[in-house]
Amino acid sequence: MPATENSALTSFHAVIPAGGAGTRLWPLSRASRPKFLLDLNGSGRSLLQQTWDRLVDLIPAERIHVVTGAAHAGAIGEQLPDLTSLIVEPSPRDSMPAIGLAAAIIGAKDPDAVIGSFAADHVIDDQIAFAEAIRQAVAVAGQGLISTIGITPTGPSTAFGYIEAGALLDVEGATSARAITRFVEKPDEATAAAYVADGDHSWNGGMFVTRTSVLLDHLARLQPGLHDGLTRIAAAWQQPDRQEVLENVWPALTKIAIDHAIAEPVSLEGGMAMVPGSFSWDDLGDYAALQDIGVTPAPGTVWVDADGLTIAEDGTTIAVVGLHDVIVVRTVDATLVTTREHAQRVKDVVSALKDRGRDDLV
Amino acid sequence: MPATENSALTSFHAVIPAGGAGTRLWPLSRASRPKFLLDLNGSGRSLLQQTWDRLVDLIPAERIHVVTGAAHAGAIGEQLPDLTSLIVEPSPRDSMPAIGLAAAIIGAKDPDAVIGSFAADHVIDDQIAFAEAIRQAVAVAGQGLISTIGITPTGPSTAFGYIEAGALLDVEGATSARAITRFVEKPDEATAAAYVADGDHSWNGGMFVTRTSVLLDHLARLQPGLHDGLTRIAAAWQQPDRQEVLENVWPALTKIAIDHAIAEPVSLEGGMAMVPGSFSWDDLGDYAALQDIGVTPAPGTVWVDADGLTIAEDGTTIAVVGLHDVIVVRTVDATLVTTREHAQRVKDVVSALKDRGRDDLV
Repeated sequence: MPATENSALTSFHAVIPAGGAGTRLWPLSRASRPKFLLDLNGSGRSLLQQTWDRLVDLIPAERIHVVTGAAHAGAIGEQLPDLTSLIVEPSPRDSMPAIGLAAAIIGAKDPDAVIGSFAADHVIDDQIAFAEAIRQAVAVAGQGLISTIGITPTGPSTAFGYIEAGALLDVEGATSARAITRFVEKPDEATAAAYVADGDHSWNGGMFVTRTSVLLDHLARLQPGLHDGLTRIAAAWQQPDRQEVLENVWPALTKIAIDHAIAEPVSLEGGMAMVPGSFSWDDLGDYAALQDIGVTPAPGTVWVDADGLTIAEDGTTIAVVGLHDVIVVRTVDATLVTTREHAQRVKDVVSALKDRGRDDLV
Repeated sequence: MPATENSALTSFHAVIPAGGAGTRLWPLSRASRPKFLLDLNGSGRSLLQQTWDRLVDLIPAERIHVVTGAAHAGAIGEQLPDLTSLIVEPSPRDSMPAIGLAAAIIGAKDPDAVIGSFAADHVIDDQIAFAEAIRQAVAVAGQGLISTIGITPTGPSTAFGYIEAGALLDVEGATSARAITRFVEKPDEATAAAYVADGDHSWNGGMFVTRTSVLLDHLARLQPGLHDGLTRIAAAWQQPDRQEVLENVWPALTKIAIDHAIAEPVSLEGGMAMVPGSFSWDDLGDYAALQDIGVTPAPGTVWVDADGLTIAEDGTTIAVVGLHDVIVVRTVDATLVTTREHAQRVKDVVSALKDRGRDDLV
């Protein structure tokens, strides 16, 4: 048993949906080698492995479940040799079917289970604060609420969605938990500044903690077709016809994110709670984010009246002359040149390559 | 005999000093693979081979002489299989010793010889106009003048030196030849515009045509030490002690360009003439020059709100987002990113790499 596990986490399972293309991190991130498989922050571990490390510090490996597509099952197995529960989706249907299926499978074996979902490609740098937030979120989930971690903002970011918190809840073991009044989409700069100033808004890190039964009951009410399909798949999960049922049912499931299917409607009904997380967190959405978390330029980069971020995956030398806030990324088969200001538009390169039939590069 | 040769060129020899680092074209151009060995304009032939092709169209291969350093002798031999006269310098002493040695060697065998010197790394795109200018320059040289080709400017370039022409000369077979009043260094923009407007200024393409005896007589007067050294080497050229004399004498020769040693002082004495060359010419001094001669971006380049020049020597894909007039050059071991405006400063990258001891990259 890990040193930090305690009785509050004995029924806690972690679900890691490992998907997403990370097209704003092209050419490092590819369909065949997505962001979560990469060591983007120079830690020596991929983002998925770092997510695993955070969780296996809290609970046994057997209670960590990864949901992914068939294309990445092999690579994930190599990166996580202690993983025992790999749930392979026949095709991507967004986060709600992925997390819902995990919930149905886990709940079928352990009706008291509390699950927490954690993106495979985010970075968090304070394990003690992370663990404390999870413990409080699990305590809140025990009361029948869906809880989430609200990341305490370090600035008025316009790159993240925000959680608006209301009154403090009175939950034992979760003294900082507050009700959620609503979720808000990525704001403009002025709105973001107001959010950071008012103390009631935090970043939505996409971590949801809930009893499986609570999640599935909400789903039965709000997305009955999806609930029905997931229940059928879960019932067959330990049966000989698992694959047949999965392949028949899965493609027809509603493609929807958990935010839209559950978090937003349930928050308006008063069914969601927020536990503040004071740790550093980033979703590493683009190259500007890599700069922000302190990724250093490629060794040997020559700057002549220039500055920015360089990454040379193949160890070659990059030189920049007369350009500021530049971003240069070189892989074995491609080179990206942009600036910090245009970092979000890198996804347009991937679109252009797809349009040209260059599937080998996306 | 080439179809275009005529009696005026029967004693004409061409000398190609093949040197220069081309540091503003890093990372394509390297100390070990200088500009003249590269096919920079996508013609399928290196700049040296294109120079050779222009000359072998006028005179037999046996009368074309290349002067270079030991490091490049092998590569030049491979690129020019018909070359019979390769003069190898023990060390680079700039253009005057290189051309002077060739003149002394050629003059020793053929006292009536007229030589023309042609940089190994320039581009010219009108062979008929080039040949006509050479014929007139050879006719002028027959009168005891040193002649040069003045490139008719296509715009107020500040990247080239200028030749100021005076009165028309009265030389048979050289009806457009004029006296040179002086050579002027690279001007500022306003001066360049005035030069182009007045019709008396042309670009100095660095092509000098002269009797070997005339050149050596000027040298004996203006650079007697250098003349003495070159004469000693030439006298030993067909003797068993050639290498010994070369290695003893060469390192002490004055390091000087032919422009400063001969062209500038002799022009002020009235000893130089200019034949206008109306062909397109460029010294391909930097990446902006490559753009100017119409080099197209690397195939498959993805431009997202961006434009400029890309070169991918290894055939990989380059994408640029949100940058204009950008220059991106990728070789197997290095990447350069700059803009057209800063193209001249690429040489600073080479300096920085030398300072760091990265001789493998320069």
